[in-house]
Amino acid sequence: MALVVQKYGGSSVATPEKIKNIAKRVLNTRAQGNDVVVVVSAMGDTTDELLELARQITDDPQERETDMLLSTGEQVSIALLSMAIHALGYSVISLTGAQVGILTSAVHTKARIVKVNSERILGELQQGKIVIVAGFQGVNENNDITTLGRGGSDTTAVALAAALQADVCEIYTDVSGVYTADPRIVPDARKLPVISYDEMLEMASLGAVVLQPRSVEYAKHYNVVIHVRSSFNGEAGTIVREVGEVEKELVVSGVTCDKKVAKVAILEVPDRPGVAYQVFAALADANVNVDMIIQSIKRGAVNDISFTVAESDLRKATAAMQQLSERLGAGGVAQDSNVAKVSIVGAGLGGNPVIAAKMFGALAEKGINIEMISTSEIKISCLLQMAKADEAVQAVHQIFSLGVEEKAS
Amino acid sequence: MALVVQKYGGSSVATPEKIKNIAKRVLNTRAQGNDVVVVVSAMGDTTDELLELARQITDDPQERETDMLLSTGEQVSIALLSMAIHALGYSVISLTGAQVGILTSAVHTKARIVKVNSERILGELQQGKIVIVAGFQGVNENNDITTLGRGGSDTTAVALAAALQADVCEIYTDVSGVYTADPRIVPDARKLPVISYDEMLEMASLGAVVLQPRSVEYAKHYNVVIHVRSSFNGEAGTIVREVGEVEKELVVSGVTCDKKVAKVAILEVPDRPGVAYQVFAALADANVNVDMIIQSIKRGAVNDISFTVAESDLRKATAAMQQLSERLGAGGVAQDSNVAKVSIVGAGLGGNPVIAAKMFGALAEKGINIEMISTSEIKISCLLQMAKADEAVQAVHQIFSLGVEEKAS
Repeated sequence: MALVVQKYGGSSVATPEKIKNIAKRVLNTRAQGNDVVVVVSAMGDTTDELLELARQITDDPQERETDMLLSTGEQVSIALLSMAIHALGYSVISLTGAQVGILTSAVHTKARIVKVNSERILGELQQGKIVIVAGFQGVNENNDITTLGRGGSDTTAVALAAALQADVCEIYTDVSGVYTADPRIVPDARKLPVISYDEMLEMASLGAVVLQPRSVEYAKHYNVVIHVRSSFNGEAGTIVREVGEVEKELVVSGVTCDKKVAKVAILEVPDRPGVAYQVFAALADANVNVDMIIQSIKRGAVNDISFTVAESDLRKATAAMQQLSERLGAGGVAQDSNVAKVSIVGAGLGGNPVIAAKMFGALAEKGINIEMISTSEIKISCLLQMAKADEAVQAVHQIFSLGVEEKAS
Repeated sequence: MALVVQKYGGSSVATPEKIKNIAKRVLNTRAQGNDVVVVVSAMGDTTDELLELARQITDDPQERETDMLLSTGEQVSIALLSMAIHALGYSVISLTGAQVGILTSAVHTKARIVKVNSERILGELQQGKIVIVAGFQGVNENNDITTLGRGGSDTTAVALAAALQADVCEIYTDVSGVYTADPRIVPDARKLPVISYDEMLEMASLGAVVLQPRSVEYAKHYNVVIHVRSSFNGEAGTIVREVGEVEKELVVSGVTCDKKVAKVAILEVPDRPGVAYQVFAALADANVNVDMIIQSIKRGAVNDISFTVAESDLRKATAAMQQLSERLGAGGVAQDSNVAKVSIVGAGLGGNPVIAAKMFGALAEKGINIEMISTSEIKISCLLQMAKADEAVQAVHQIFSLGVEEKAS
């Protein structure tokens, strides 16, 4: 008998009818003799509807109260899924993040899980119950409700799998696994049977929205095996796990594209020690994560400092930079949200200059200008104009022969 | 500086626009230098909408999960009201029942408040914040979310006022106070400036739906002064408080009518000691409250036992009685939900046989048949056919000269 953690996203529980289907799916796993813990998101567009209600009240809601508001969405889902499972004759209980004891950092709307208390869940499992847990939410040490950011239910599922030492964490989505590129952009993209945590992590951070990046970090840290699969069919999906050196055959695993990024530049910053520190401290204070960074020396005494942020953080980042620009006597702030980040990811990619050259060459051949570059052990990212993004993805996917036909030949 | 607890019902917070209006009302009280704790219900029809979602899943939802589901309604309200107050520039925080520490009995959907922890609220008030609390909900000792039954937010408000030793508990409703009868049935009904807890308690249990009965019990026990008033105007409403002997001038304070009752009879029950005990133990097990009771001896060895219950409990009561009827070899179960309970309430009513005679006389004069009678120190209730209810209320209101014109003459 195994312990399985399953996570179902908002589209899987969008209507009472769909919730009843998920109940049957959960009971299939149960019927195979497994203990089952299920994590669910809010129904369909509930989160957006709640945000719209808040917007009708004020343009600037407090983040604590936003969390108070949004966390009701998952609470509705867990109650309804429990009712659906109970109606099929099984013993079941729903638990909120607070009831489980999912302790998070204090930062509202973007909290990190600090600790998961397994006691209550294990107690309920021992009584033979299926346990339904609200994704996306926890409590900070002040007992205030926090949320984990968009996609946070993935992290909830992985954190529970780790705390409960589950055998597998199944993440059900509307795609049937992780692909070498987005099949809507690259029709011959191929489903990967296995991918390492590091590659998945890069994929996730780079805009392949299959899993929330933090959930992959968490899985890597606690060695949780994730199975990403479709909630609409029974096919095997993609296993995300530690991959040994010998298995790293493919150099490039996939091409991703993130269109929800924006570029911010603080212009003509005095070239003094500590200035870069001040820029990034100001962003940290504003709770903005920075991705790519370029510091370019233009004239003798001043620099431009450019960086990219998530589009949703653009307003906060720009506001923080405008304040800082005045304080430093810099030349102002520029922004551009009309950009996209195209990246290649691969376990064996680090220290292989041929790969980078090949990617840049493919882009140059299409006449696509690269605005910023960043690299890591397992990825190379290029920032370019949004309008060229799909063409860039296709060109790069092609140059590394990632498609179905190329592999078959 | 006083501490004021205010409660706003679902119709007062039905839309974002109305929530903004309530925010202004709260700030008026705040601007007068008071500390303010606000209790809110779920927006408009939210509770019914959530119940409808549950109904689409199953006809028989678990009560624990129903509470899990319904408690989200108030959580949405408190978040939005906090946002609205914050947007007007005031410091504010929302708290769920669990966060306050409103401990209740274990019974789901009908829990009783056992203890209110004042620590968190007092701490927030000391920091100068307005505190918004979710009505209707608490947690049992297992940390499961419970709800207090329809109208439970009144009880939440009174319980908080008691725990915080508030100066007054203002209950805002869509009527402007407590009347001698329902003005929709009796056009010349008069608003009472003051009413005692006991009278209000009888009024409430008898179908005057201004306040939840339990909230009045609670107020009496902890000597909390309640001010029932309209959320649509600034008029003084009705004060509910302990009334001294000298103040008890009016014998009959009001006439009430409860149409949401049903009569159940278990027929031809063997006349053995302990049988009545078994009937009411079975109802207690089914968590059904019983109101009026009649045991009539028909033939030598068998009795009929009749009683009334809330209409919402009829199904449960009938089921319990059918089981018992089979076990006892009784003659079956009869039910009638087409009845209404018309009552008079008055502090000086007990031990005054003239009053009862006057009431029964007024009903007889209209040819209205009385099916059951029950009395207490401060009320006399008659069960009669639903179709005659309004006529009965008018006749009784008239006979005791409770109307506006009679008082003025």
